[in-house]
Parts: sequence; C-alpha cells; structure tokens
Amino acid sequence: MADTNALVAKLEALGLGEKPVEHAAVENVEQWAEALAGASGVPAAYTLTKTLIFKPKQPKSEPVAPVLVVIKDDTVADAKAIGRELGFKELRLAGEEILADVFQTSRGSVSPFALAKVPEEQIGNVRVVLDKALLSDGAGTIAFHPLDSTRTVFVDGACLQSFVKSVDGLKHVTEIDFVALAAAAPAVGEKAAKPAKPAAAVPAKAEEVTGSAKQGIEASKEKDFATWYRQVILRSEMLDNYSVSGCYILRPTSYFVWQEIQNFLDAGIRAMGVRNCYFPMFVPEEELNREKDHIEGFAPEVAWVTKAGQSELAMPLAIRPTSETVMYPYYAKWIQSYRDLPLRLNQWNSVVRWEFKNPQPFLRTREFLWQEGHCAYMTKDEAWSEVLDILTLYRRVYEELLAVPVIEGVKSEKEKFAGGDATTTVEGFIPATGRGIQGATSHYLGQNFAKMFGVVVEDPEATGPERPKLHVHQTSWGLSTRTIGVMVMTHSDDKGLVLPPRVAETQVIIVPSGLNSKHTAEDRQRTLDACLAVEARLRRVGVRASSDLRDNYTPGYKFNHWELRGVPLRLEIGPRDLEKQSVLSVRRDTFEKAALPLDGLEGVVELLLHKIQDDLLIRARATMHERVKMVLRWDDFVPALNSKCMAQIPWCEREECEEQIKTRSTRDAQSDEPEDEKEPSMGAKSLCLPMKQPQNPPIVAGETKCIQCGHDAKRYALFGRSY
Amino acid sequence: MADTNALVAKLEALGLGEKPVEHAAVENVEQWAEALAGASGVPAAYTLTKTLIFKPKQPKSEPVAPVLVVIKDDTVADAKAIGRELGFKELRLAGEEILADVFQTSRGSVSPFALAKVPEEQIGNVRVVLDKALLSDGAGTIAFHPLDSTRTVFVDGACLQSFVKSVDGLKHVTEIDFVALAAAAPAVGEKAAKPAKPAAAVPAKAEEVTGSAKQGIEASKEKDFATWYRQVILRSEMLDNYSVSGCYILRPTSYFVWQEIQNFLDAGIRAMGVRNCYFPMFVPEEELNREKDHIEGFAPEVAWVTKAGQSELAMPLAIRPTSETVMYPYYAKWIQSYRDLPLRLNQWNSVVRWEFKNPQPFLRTREFLWQEGHCAYMTKDEAWSEVLDILTLYRRVYEELLAVPVIEGVKSEKEKFAGGDATTTVEGFIPATGRGIQGATSHYLGQNFAKMFGVVVEDPEATGPERPKLHVHQTSWGLSTRTIGVMVMTHSDDKGLVLPPRVAETQVIIVPSGLNSKHTAEDRQRTLDACLAVEARLRRVGVRASSDLRDNYTPGYKFNHWELRGVPLRLEIGPRDLEKQSVLSVRRDTFEKAALPLDGLEGVVELLLHKIQDDLLIRARATMHERVKMVLRWDDFVPALNSKCMAQIPWCEREECEEQIKTRSTRDAQSDEPEDEKEPSMGAKSLCLPMKQPQNPPIVAGETKCIQCGHDAKRYALFGRSY
Repeated sequence: MADTNALVAKLEALGLGEKPVEHAAVENVEQWAEALAGASGVPAAYTLTKTLIFKPKQPKSEPVAPVLVVIKDDTVADAKAIGRELGFKELRLAGEEILADVFQTSRGSVSPFALAKVPEEQIGNVRVVLDKALLSDGAGTIAFHPLDSTRTVFVDGACLQSFVKSVDGLKHVTEIDFVALAAAAPAVGEKAAKPAKPAAAVPAKAEEVTGSAKQGIEASKEKDFATWYRQVILRSEMLDNYSVSGCYILRPTSYFVWQEIQNFLDAGIRAMGVRNCYFPMFVPEEELNREKDHIEGFAPEVAWVTKAGQSELAMPLAIRPTSETVMYPYYAKWIQSYRDLPLRLNQWNSVVRWEFKNPQPFLRTREFLWQEGHCAYMTKDEAWSEVLDILTLYRRVYEELLAVPVIEGVKSEKEKFAGGDATTTVEGFIPATGRGIQGATSHYLGQNFAKMFGVVVEDPEATGPERPKLHVHQTSWGLSTRTIGVMVMTHSDDKGLVLPPRVAETQVIIVPSGLNSKHTAEDRQRTLDACLAVEARLRRVGVRASSDLRDNYTPGYKFNHWELRGVPLRLEIGPRDLEKQSVLSVRRDTFEKAALPLDGLEGVVELLLHKIQDDLLIRARATMHERVKMVLRWDDFVPALNSKCMAQIPWCEREECEEQIKTRSTRDAQSDEPEDEKEPSMGAKSLCLPMKQPQNPPIVAGETKCIQCGHDAKRYALFGRSY
Repeated sequence: MADTNALVAKLEALGLGEKPVEHAAVENVEQWAEALAGASGVPAAYTLTKTLIFKPKQPKSEPVAPVLVVIKDDTVADAKAIGRELGFKELRLAGEEILADVFQTSRGSVSPFALAKVPEEQIGNVRVVLDKALLSDGAGTIAFHPLDSTRTVFVDGACLQSFVKSVDGLKHVTEIDFVALAAAAPAVGEKAAKPAKPAAAVPAKAEEVTGSAKQGIEASKEKDFATWYRQVILRSEMLDNYSVSGCYILRPTSYFVWQEIQNFLDAGIRAMGVRNCYFPMFVPEEELNREKDHIEGFAPEVAWVTKAGQSELAMPLAIRPTSETVMYPYYAKWIQSYRDLPLRLNQWNSVVRWEFKNPQPFLRTREFLWQEGHCAYMTKDEAWSEVLDILTLYRRVYEELLAVPVIEGVKSEKEKFAGGDATTTVEGFIPATGRGIQGATSHYLGQNFAKMFGVVVEDPEATGPERPKLHVHQTSWGLSTRTIGVMVMTHSDDKGLVLPPRVAETQVIIVPSGLNSKHTAEDRQRTLDACLAVEARLRRVGVRASSDLRDNYTPGYKFNHWELRGVPLRLEIGPRDLEKQSVLSVRRDTFEKAALPLDGLEGVVELLLHKIQDDLLIRARATMHERVKMVLRWDDFVPALNSKCMAQIPWCEREECEEQIKTRSTRDAQSDEPEDEKEPSMGAKSLCLPMKQPQNPPIVAGETKCIQCGHDAKRYALFGRSY
C-alpha cells in the first residue's frame, strides 16, 4: 500500500508533480466547475471527470471485484452496459465501506489516484474502466482530484494511461467508448417502442416511445433543482461553462432564443418611435460617479480596465454596468430645445456586473446581453405612459414568445432602481423552487438624472426673454438574457429542455423509424426520401423542420437526443406509416402521440405547434395561479413560502416593515423547518405591488391593516423568496 | 493692459483658477477634441468652443472695431448675419495684425480671455458676441484655451459671462441665438429657389433649390478631406465624439446602416448553415497567449481588466481583440468526431483594440462592432470554399447595400492575418485621398490553430483500433462598422452625407413648400395634409418616408437640414404642385429635379430610389476603375500614387520586395514632391493580389519581371497608399 508521500513521488515521476490547484472543498461536479473557474493557474480548457466505484453482484465465495470507472463528467455511466462489457451481471455503486477499506478514500474524494492506495492483496481484483473519450488527443487536458476534493490536477490522457499502467499488481484495465456504448444500447429502446403502435391516433404515454439509452438528465427537477438546471442547460447544449468564473458561452440553441426575442422586441420599440444606437462600453471613472445613489448601487460590481498593451491608463475605465451615466451627458448636449423632445434611444449590448454572489447561468452572470432603452420627455405623463407601454412589451415577450406567465407590478421603495423614482416590473415565478424572479424592469427616473446631468429645455409655454428652464422626465428600461433562464426553469422536465415552438431553432425533428433487418435497401431509401420530402414541405411553409438521417444511431437514441434538446415536435416516419399515408407525431411537452395524415400535413403541424405554444402558457399560468396565496394573517405567511408559494398580503408599504418581514420570515422559517441544504430557507422580500389588485377582500382605507406590523395597509403586495 | 500674471489672478478670482488641462498644441477643433479625449482631468461632457475675431468694413476715419465672437464649435458664424445684428455692413475674419496688436495673441490661441489683454485705449471699441447656446444651463461645461492652444480650461456659461463683465472698459457685449439666426436667414434661400420652377420636369442644378442658411459643411472634400470627414459625420449626426479617446457614439443614423448590414449578412450566413452564438468578452491571459504569431499581432493593443469593485483580480482578463483564442478551446471540446464537422459559428459583438495610432471614426476605433465567423471543417477544400463564399457576401454588402465597389483579392504574406494561412479581402478605395482601405477579410486559418488548441478528429477513412488523428481546417472572417466610414467617404459631398437608399433610415423626406403670406390657412392645411397623405402612401409600400412639418423653419432651412443628413430623395409639395396633381422630387446624389405625378407616385418613387442606389455604385465604380493604373515600370509607380491612384504591377510576391517597395516609394515621394501637411506622402503597401488578374499584357512565367526588383513576376498585385 502506497502512502501519500509515495503517491506524490509517483505522480511526480509521471510528470504530474506540478502543484495541484487548490480550492474550496466541493461536493459535486457543478461546485467543482465553479471552484475551478474562480481559481488561478487553471488551464484555458479542460474536461472534468468523475470517478465512480461500483461493486458487481458476485457469488459470496468470490473476492470482491470493485470496478473503478473514470469517465467524463457529462457522460452517463450506464451500470448495466459496463457490467455487460466486463462480464458482470449487475453493478451497483459501492458503499462507503469499499471506498474506505479498498481505496482508503471517501465519497467526493475518489480519483484514479486512489488506485495507488489499494492494498497489495486487493489490487489484483480491481477492475479499471477508462472512458476512451478521455484518452483521445481531442480530449485535451483532463481534471482530477488527486487526493481529496480541495485540490485538482490537470493531466492529459497519456498521463492517465501511464499512471494506471504504473500501478503495481493491477491486472484488469478496460477502455470503453461510452458514446458507442450508448449508441448501441437503444436496441432496447427500439423494442420498448413497439407496444406504442405507431398508427394509433390515441394519445399514449411518453415512456412508451422513448428509448432507454440513458443519455440525458439524471437529476430530478423536483428533488435537486440546482443540479437539474445545470444538467439541462449544459446537456441540451444551450450553454457551456467558460474559463472565467461567472461568464458562460451562449451556444446556438440559446442564442437563437435571444435573436427571436430581439426581433420581436426591436420591431416593437421601433414601431413606438424608439431608435437604436450604440454607446461605447467604457465609462471614465468620474462620469460613473456623477449620480450618487446610482453609483452606490453599482460601484461594488464594476469591472475596471487599467491597462492597455503595456501601458497603464491615466484614468481607469469602467466597463458599463448600465448606461445612464454614459448616455445622459450627451442627452444634455443633444437636447437644446423642447423641440428636441422626446429623445428616445435604445441599445443592444452587453453589460458587466462583477457579482460576487454565486453566479447562476442566465439568471446572474458577470457579463450578460440585454437591451437598454433611455428616453427623455417634456412631461411626466408622457414618460409614465412609455414606462407602461414598454412593460406591456416585456410581458408579451414572456407570455407570447416564451410561454411564461408574469405578474405586472410596481417595485417597493427598497427594491426600486438606484437613482430612479419608480420601477415597474414583470415578475416571474419558478414553481419548482417556489421563488419569484424579476423578469424585466421599466423605470420612471423622474428628473433626478436630468438634474445631475443638466438635461434641460426652456419652458415652451413661458414667454419673455428669460424663460424658466425645465428638467426633462426620463425613463430607462431593460430586458436581458435572464429571460432564457426563466423559460428553461419553467417548462423543462426530467427529460431535458422543453422549448416553446416560437423560439425553438428546430421546431420539428423528423426521424425515420420502424426499419429493421427484414426491410430492403429500397424500403430504407423510400423512408429516408419520405423524411426529406416532409422536411421540404414543412420548410416551404416556414416551419423550422429538420431530419435526423444519421445512420450510426438508432431511432431511440435520436428520440432522446432531440427530447433532451427540447425540440417541440417529433415526426416519426417508417414503412408502415407510409403504407397508411401518415406520420406519427410526438409532442415534447406532453409526449402525446397522434397519427397525422400526410395529406395536408403542413397545416396540421402548424396548428399543433400553435397548440403546444398555447398549452405551455396555459399550464404555466395555472401553476402560477395556484401558487399565489392570499395571506391575511402573519401566521400563514411562512407556511405559504414553505409550500413554495408567493404570499399576497395587505401591506403598509413602509421600508422598515419590509426589512422586518425579511428578518422575521427568515427566523420563522428556520425554527419551523429542518434546514434543507439545497434550498436554504431564506427570508421573503417584496416582489411587487401588483397592478391588478385583488378585490376580494378589498383593501379598505383606514380599516385593512398590514399583516406584519398592523399599520394601515395601502395595497396588496406580493412577497416571496426570490432569485 | 493686463499681463499674464494679472490674467491668471483674474481667472482665479472668477473661480477659474483650477489648473488648466495641458495637452499637445492643436491647430483645429478636431485636433483639440482628440487631445482632450486623451487627456486626464477632462470632464465627462463638455462643449468645445471657437473664438473668432472679425473686422468690420468701416470708414477709414473710424477707430477699428474688432468683433470677438465666442460660439459653439459646430455652429456656423454667419459673418453677414452677425454684421446685420451689430449694424455693420460687412465682417471679415481679422488678420494676424489685429490679433497681435489688439489682442496680444495669434491664430490658434484666440480665446475670450484675450479680452483681458486688450490695451485700455482700444477695449472700448471691441464688440463681443456670445453664443446664447453657451450661456444656457443646458450648455453644461464649455471648453476654452485660456492662453494658448496647449491648455484648456472648463467653465460654465455663468463664468464666461462674469469674466466678460469683469473686463474693464468693455462696452459692447451682445448675446445672439445663432440657431434662431440661422432659422431666420433662409428667407433668402426661399427667394433663390424661385427661379427653379417646381413644375419643370427637366433636371436643374442643385444650387438653385438649396437655401443659403449656412448650416452644414464648411470644409471641402477635395481640399481638406480630414476636416471634411469629421464635419460630415458629426454634423449629419452619424456619430458623436465620446469622452474616451478613440471611442465614438454611433447615433441612430449610422446604427441604422449597421442594422441593415446585419440583417442582410445574418440572413446570408444563416442560409449557408452558420449558427449564431455568444462567447464572453473576457479572455484569461494565458489563453490569449496560446498562439504565438497570433498574439504577437494583437498583444500591444489589448485592454486589460485588472480590478473588480475594490478587488484586484487574481488573473488579469483581456477584453477580446478577436475571438480565435476565446473560442477554439471549446471547439476542441465540442468536436469529438468527424460527425461533429463542420462546426460553423458566428457572433455579433464588439471588440477592443487599443490602437495608439491616430483614431479615425469608423475606420480605426478602439472599440468597434463587427461579426466574427469561425468554422471548422474536415478538409481544406471545404474550408476554402467557405472562405470564398463569405468573401462574396462581403462584396455584396459593399456593392449592393452601400453602393461601394470593392476589389476581391488575396493578401500578401506580409499583410495576412496573424496566425492564419491565407487572407482574402475585399479592398475599397477612397478617391478623394487616393488611398486603399481593407474592406473586410475572410481567412483560411489552415490547421495552425487546430494544432495549438488540439482540435482533432479520428480519420473516418482509416480502419483499425488506432485511427490517426486529423487536425481540422479552420476559417475565420469578419466585417465591421468600418464599412460605414468607407460608405461615407465614397459618396458624401460638400453638402454633407449622401446615403444609399437601401441603408437610409429616412429614404424620402417630404417638405411642404411654396406657401407664402398670400396663402390662406386653408391652403396651408391642405398642403400639410397632402404631405401626410403622400407619406402614408409611401409607407404602405414599405418606403421609409417622413414629413418635415415643423412650423419654425423655412423650407430652405429644411432642405439643407435633410441634405446634410443624406436623405436620398426629397419631395416638395406646395399649392401649385397640388393644382397640377404632382410633387417635385429632388435627388440628394445629383440634385436632379423632376415633377412626379401624384397618381402612381409609389411606383415612381420606388424606381427612383432604385435608380439612385444603382447610380451611386455605377459612379463610384467608374471612378475606381479610372484609378487603378496599370504600372509596368518603376518610374511610373510613385507618380501613379501621387495622382491618387492605385498601381497594378507585375510582382514577385516576395516579402523582402514588399518592404523595399514601401521604403522606396516613401523616399521617392519625398524627393519628388513638397511635403503636404494634411496628407503626408506615405509609402505604398500591397493591397491585394486581385482575383481577377489583368490579361493584357498577361504575366508570362519566367519572362515577366517584377517592376521593383527584377525577379520573376508571379501575378499582378495592387499596391497603394492605404488606411
């Protein structure tokens, strides 16, 4: 048995002697990725790995043969398939006992290097399985914990192989191509698909048609939301992690959603008379500091450029966290007369807010894409009218494009935009966590910024030589890529992403199916041709259809592949369908199946896509409706939160009371409930004062009291835990 | 007479004692703006001023009454109008004598503070005119040279007023609203318009219809191109200067052009199968440094983020100068098999290259907008085929949208993209300066980056367990907002911007005209209604039409206003036009006029817009064609450059020879010609090896010699001075 020093020596001998990167202890692959992203000395690109230890079902008489599997973190270790490869009947994850006794380690710290610690008398029984994908040159650098979960070493595939070879007494090493393994498996799925007669027009359950190849999501949305969310967005290829912590790559699937949002919103604001422009991303320090309240809100999160090439800059430049202070000095210059009003500009850009809180893909990232509109008006009424028009557009983005219901409201004083007079908001809600989320905001800035930057005009109604100066009334409003995260959280399920048809890059995936060894090459060709013909017909009417004719994957594999990626509708076409002049459709959202006649298919598919879009919103709206709880006494407040609801309460609207609600709900929740690690009980904050106020019971001035403090209630407010 | 010390004391007393900002001596307002943008201690926003000294035409007997005018830098000081206001017959710019004798100063150093130096016996004769726009609160901070052109002080309007009041003995101070002055003037323009009978279908000369209100461009495109360009882009409101040097604000007029380019190009590349995505703007230092040649090309220009909030970053982050090294580590990860090829991604973003050379709006800016495509293929042929397809799209952007002709070619070894194998280019040409300009480039990167980042797949054609690894073949290609600058330089004229109709936010401006005091309120209303009706009809067929019904400006003023802003077509509608059921059209490019019948107007206007678009390209192409000189001996080379041409020469394609051509053409030019300050004679570099090679005379292998060095010529190359 090698002790730690010997192991280190061995690693050194293999060229692994570089100091491992140190970081906080991590408990799962997501935490690990985060920790590395924040650490220094980490290579630009690397593949995370996981090391799993299985125990096969064996006759008691045989010595235990632990199976150590080293695999890419996003590859599914199909225990059955591995067992088959190694000739074992059944593999199960090994318990702590085997980890401790055989590998001198514990869960969370398992790595291939644990092999170096296996006692001499046991190493001969150990089976090692290496993922071929890690060994190919293309794999690049791979990351392991060498000893425990607070350190990471980076090696390449060849290193891993040499290390494994260097372990004395190790006899059984197998390299497995897990991709091929998964591809081979769906034969089972094929079989499983049979009972669901393709011709049946009656809706059938999803499980019947999905292959069993376990690509896809392992975590459960209900049980482990955080892991589930990561898996959905990474594995559906919406997003990839990036080597700078808190920054993410928007892959084509998610960027397509963003472009659809852009097209809709850009047309909407242009139709209102807003014009697009582009201001530089850099803000000189002193400009940023002009508006005091505003800068207090943003300063801690500003990223600073201090150097260009080899030269220090004379004045540090901020990267815009938002553009009020970038743009308004020029508004002061451009607005010389009331005739220059309104000035209505928008820009599509990216902003940087160096959040030190946990980043959350789409929802809270250090760089994100958005639009920011900035308008100046003569009067408050005009400005307010725009604030509300924009809010309507934002609601429509959520509801009509993303099928996500939102609640329109006004933010409390505490939650409003730093430096503005009032903030209106569309608030979303994630049922799986019971947390509210700010969807997009439209601010009435009042005259605050105008005073700060001197945006004034002469009063057109006054006469005489010395007309009084009037400060303009301003608005600003923004909607960001956060929308995409809210959409994913709302609709997606344990099979992966669910995309509303309006924003799906591929709306219909066509998969040839039902072909087997009895079919001739001609049958096969006829089926593939039929797929392409259907694709062409759909494309002609503007449906974004695509055929998956890959010959190295089974239909079952493809079903999973496209379900994971959220394609709203699947059409299966096989020889028997063609005989009947029909295709089999399967909805991604409900897995409902229907035989659709080829004749007039275009119209039916279009209708079906509209139906899916509508149904997604209807279902999400019903859920949200259930989760807005009318709470008329404090005792019901925390229980409402704990049942993953938002609480609608008569409220006094005092900032002090809002603070108290936060503190009190945190405390109550802690005493009521056992601490849940994944979803720590958190206090509630005000989400908004809904524009549609409940009427039953109505707020009676001077009579209805705030449920927290007993002061007079002014309006109903929506409170909840939130992102 | 106050000496310098006394002046400083006076300024201090007025609260102007702050240390002035120091900078290099400047000779004109453009240089001044640049100098300030690069200096520290400069306020976020300020208005540049100019101080002009005029001398009125007076009877010799009277004492000289110099007129000192302080005015916004972009306001035209109409000498005639100022004279009228002050009761002088004629004003002319004062000569150096008056500057020296009366104000103790010299050209380039004139400021209001020169008043403090006027001798006691003369101050009583001086007239001071202050621009009201500088005194309004809205003006904000205004910038002056206090004593000479190497220093700048920033004051507000009130300060300026107190200073002027404080000048002992000064008697005549007048505040003039120059905007109103300009607005009042065009009555003259109206008169001038009369001879050009609105009903005449015969084209007439421009000058006849333009008002005389001298808003607009003062510099001549031919005589002072640099100043002309600045004036055109600033005054047409394409762009504004920004408080960070080398960064500019894209105002709606130019951003509209960019969005039209985006729409066209985005549709084109998507149709080719390229998908959009978004990578973060930050690049960790070590990632940037992976490709050696590449980083050598970019390192001196990289902007570094070193701080976030109050914290120093552990690892500095570059802001992407281009995304090869940002993206390719992920290509290595995503491309696991030849089946993942091709991978074709594009992103629309902004990049930062901290150029230390003189910035040039649109052409060379520290932040600019572009798209960058990055694709990976199995084979060189596929990659090359895309490189050329993209180049075709780029040519179409220039030719079909911007009406700018370009020459397709391949860059020389010296000029190709750092780290790539070959660069193809569309080269533009600015006739007014005789300089070539790189329009957009499409690179074949070969396998260089693939080797660096390990982007490999297994050879699909090989068999057996150990398939050889193949590095992918890559392309990258980009087109930026530089396009807009090339378009402006190509078409615009001494009246301002000329926009091709396809990219003009307003394609048709409708101006009511021909109304005078003899017309009734009803006539007026009927005319305005007719304008709106025409606007509505044009909009219905997709023409971007707009009516200028402002009641505080004369038609002449409006003509100038929209000519300056490049609107391709003006329609004038007056009572007499309506009687004849027609409108008068005036083209911006040629000032050609025609009466268009109201009946069927939409179709005629559409045709006219197409004609304008086509004519712009045809004219620009003819000019370019003239300026490509076939040069078959060295002695003709520099003369060709000096006559603002590009030289097409038989060339050996050796890097050494390219260096020699640069040196030799610089030297020859210097000895041949007197140094021209505005356009220093510069050496020629290779612009491209044109894809369409001249055939007459053909290059005969082994026979045709390079005109510079006498080695065998391989191809014709285009050489020229360039941006």
